Amino acid sequence: MPNKNLINWTIIVRVLSFLLIMEAGFMLTGLPFAWFYDESLYPLLLSALFTGAIGLIVLLRIGKNYKKNIGKREGYLIVALTWIVISFFGTLPFLLSGAISSFTDAFFETMSGLTTTGASILNDIESMPRNILYWRSMTHWIGGMGIIVLTVAILPFLGIGGMQLMVAEMPGLQPDKLHPRITATAKRFWGIYVIFTVAEVLLLWLGEMDFFDSVNHSFATMATGGFSTRNNSIAAFGAYSQYVIILFMIFAGTNFTLHYHALHRQFSKVRHNQEFRVYLAIIAVATVYVTVNLVFFMDLGLEKSFREALFTTVSILTTTGFVTADYFVWPYFIWIFIFSLMFVGGSAGSTGGGIKIVRHLLLIKNSWLELKRAIHPQAIIPVKYNHKTVSKEIIFNVMAFFLIYVLSFASGVFVLALIGLDFETSIGATIATLGNIGPGIAGVGPVENYAFFTPFAKWFLSFLMLLGRLELFTVLIVLSPAFWRH
Amino acid sequence: MPNKNLINWTIIVRVLSFLLIMEAGFMLTGLPFAWFYDESLYPLLLSALFTGAIGLIVLLRIGKNYKKNIGKREGYLIVALTWIVISFFGTLPFLLSGAISSFTDAFFETMSGLTTTGASILNDIESMPRNILYWRSMTHWIGGMGIIVLTVAILPFLGIGGMQLMVAEMPGLQPDKLHPRITATAKRFWGIYVIFTVAEVLLLWLGEMDFFDSVNHSFATMATGGFSTRNNSIAAFGAYSQYVIILFMIFAGTNFTLHYHALHRQFSKVRHNQEFRVYLAIIAVATVYVTVNLVFFMDLGLEKSFREALFTTVSILTTTGFVTADYFVWPYFIWIFIFSLMFVGGSAGSTGGGIKIVRHLLLIKNSWLELKRAIHPQAIIPVKYNHKTVSKEIIFNVMAFFLIYVLSFASGVFVLALIGLDFETSIGATIATLGNIGPGIAGVGPVENYAFFTPFAKWFLSFLMLLGRLELFTVLIVLSPAFWRH
Repeated sequence: MPNKNLINWTIIVRVLSFLLIMEAGFMLTGLPFAWFYDESLYPLLLSALFTGAIGLIVLLRIGKNYKKNIGKREGYLIVALTWIVISFFGTLPFLLSGAISSFTDAFFETMSGLTTTGASILNDIESMPRNILYWRSMTHWIGGMGIIVLTVAILPFLGIGGMQLMVAEMPGLQPDKLHPRITATAKRFWGIYVIFTVAEVLLLWLGEMDFFDSVNHSFATMATGGFSTRNNSIAAFGAYSQYVIILFMIFAGTNFTLHYHALHRQFSKVRHNQEFRVYLAIIAVATVYVTVNLVFFMDLGLEKSFREALFTTVSILTTTGFVTADYFVWPYFIWIFIFSLMFVGGSAGSTGGGIKIVRHLLLIKNSWLELKRAIHPQAIIPVKYNHKTVSKEIIFNVMAFFLIYVLSFASGVFVLALIGLDFETSIGATIATLGNIGPGIAGVGPVENYAFFTPFAKWFLSFLMLLGRLELFTVLIVLSPAFWRH
Repeated sequence: MPNKNLINWTIIVRVLSFLLIMEAGFMLTGLPFAWFYDESLYPLLLSALFTGAIGLIVLLRIGKNYKKNIGKREGYLIVALTWIVISFFGTLPFLLSGAISSFTDAFFETMSGLTTTGASILNDIESMPRNILYWRSMTHWIGGMGIIVLTVAILPFLGIGGMQLMVAEMPGLQPDKLHPRITATAKRFWGIYVIFTVAEVLLLWLGEMDFFDSVNHSFATMATGGFSTRNNSIAAFGAYSQYVIILFMIFAGTNFTLHYHALHRQFSKVRHNQEFRVYLAIIAVATVYVTVNLVFFMDLGLEKSFREALFTTVSILTTTGFVTADYFVWPYFIWIFIFSLMFVGGSAGSTGGGIKIVRHLLLIKNSWLELKRAIHPQAIIPVKYNHKTVSKEIIFNVMAFFLIYVLSFASGVFVLALIGLDFETSIGATIATLGNIGPGIAGVGPVENYAFFTPFAKWFLSFLMLLGRLELFTVLIVLSPAFWRH
């Protein structure tokens, strides 16, 4: 009988080394680009060999004779450690190629990639070797795959932040076993993820982008990441490419279970999903508001105003962070609208970050009902979502999530203020990293980057990216003393 | 049998007209100052006669033959309408004296007084007739009395925002009858309020202030209001007066039930009150932090640094809003500290506004325990406050309050942004009015005022003051359609 109170470290290390081997494999996929563009093969090759070797050696040493039980505590540790360990080894291509010389910078960039944030410390993106830029975009794509499995399979298993809600309708997922859940989810949703990515590559390639740019931007789009291969981000491309990217950002910010339903022709489930409807409604309202104001106050012309409004709205709402216009130079009453979207976030079960639309929806519904409850204290008035009653426990959980989010945001602004950043920059950098968006406002606005931050600030912001990406709880629970006390 | 679904308007109107007669009485108390300073007696006299006459006529017309039942709905309406009606008649002295010519401005100033906010539209306070300044301070003092009764007697009766918590220990308050609750509370706590006010008047008068200034500033202190008779606020006075005001601001920001316990020599109840301990701890930590930074970065000297740090901390935390220094010109990492206190607020059951310390305490405790609960989902881990278990309903209620507060704050910033205010000013003005503080940051910083706002903005900010002062729910419930549907 294994001691249930001891953490099963063997299984944790085994999962991590397995993931390292996968990471090595992903590194190797960049070699054709290095070869095609006459760049050195060594950085990616050595990184892959080193990463894969470590993974393989550890895996072989563990062998087949280990306890296979994965409980909740192992689940938390695997999630938190995965992003850190993969980021750690993911810095190798940057460091070995000399493209980024400081470890702090390389870690920031990799963590930003794997958390699908897209905040960059690079001043001149276009001077980088192509195969290293490819790896940079690949960190997004890997991160996106991780997030889908995390939100659909792992978090509901751990019972975090109301994630049970959106998989309630998914048939065939075993609620009580982690491993089969992950396998089933990966099979269903990674296929969809790959199909979207391939479709976007082809559509972009049809336009002005070459194959390299198409692949990189598709990786960054589907992960709602935001890394571009150009210094001017998507402003470097024309209307066609921008509209294609808008379309796929919208797909990426949608709950992947809805794509699954659509694929199985269950369109009524898509149509009646309240989060999806609100998601589209926010895009529509924000786009109209920004378009009208851009036409009147920035004199941009209708099509360009519409395109910039739609692109910026979708890019920020889905937490992608691609840029076609410097929204921070728009009048304040326009950019405050964009800024407020940073606090909304994408849909649950999408690759988007932030608080998420469904949580806002539940909280607003509950606040409204709380007024009703105050008038009729004896009546039981439950919150409904997609025509089903939401348990009080989930509402409680979502409220706690929101509170901790606000607290994390306030603490973040505070720490950056103590470092000496100005008011708007500290607010912008905190929400841009905690919400996994990338660009914020002021000093970290759409045409700025994170190069000027002190090493301490870069580590702190890396932590905020991780915190936001893992839905707060996963990280905080592992950091709490109660987790280790047994 | 009275129809329980019909709102008993007669009792509401009766209470309001009774309060108008009281207001008229308070107006008359300013006449000695008008006489002493050789100012016209007419503004206060006519205002009092008109206000009192309206109250008396309505009261007599209702007579003694009316239904006496006060339910929750009547309670909500009485609370919300009281502040509006009293503000409406409270504008009369300003308008009749010609001290303020616009009704919008006069309403803003009176609402600011009665909600104990202290935000002013006056550019030159010292040019006003003394008896009108007295009435302005008196609106604070009346508002403070109202707030004590509201939070200790009425809100727990209505079951709002965890207010049940802090009166749990008060013996002899009937939980189910509003009228006896109010009478008992008023008897107990208005006495304390008056004693503190008189003591402060005497202490200030002993220093450099004349009797008039002593009375005005004592009214503003004990109500945690913030109106001063000087253009430079408390910076116009010396160290002695400032320390006296600091002491009484601390008293005013303390739960009045603790004063009651102290008066009955139950000091252990005071000592073990967690909110009180946190309140003092916040003052201590903030004062040390600000003092050290002022010494190093502003070169002010130790005593002056300490005094300005302590004064500013206490003034903002208790939501009084008196000013001895322009904290907005201090380095950002100092004023962000002050600014963050604006989101904390005073103690529950004090005259201070804002979110209140006890709510933060419960939310932080609950967030912390939520992590524990995630690790041990089967265990029941309740929040404890003052060594007693807090029911899940109260936590839920407090969470809902916090969420609606954040939502109100965000909406406020948004509306002011659309009007065309800059980022920092819209944030500052929203929290300064919603939190009933008075001074904010930037355009509404400590040495600025609210004169430059458009009429729409002034009405909107008046609404925010009312919303914050009545603990959100009271106002929002009355505004919700569900309240009127029956």
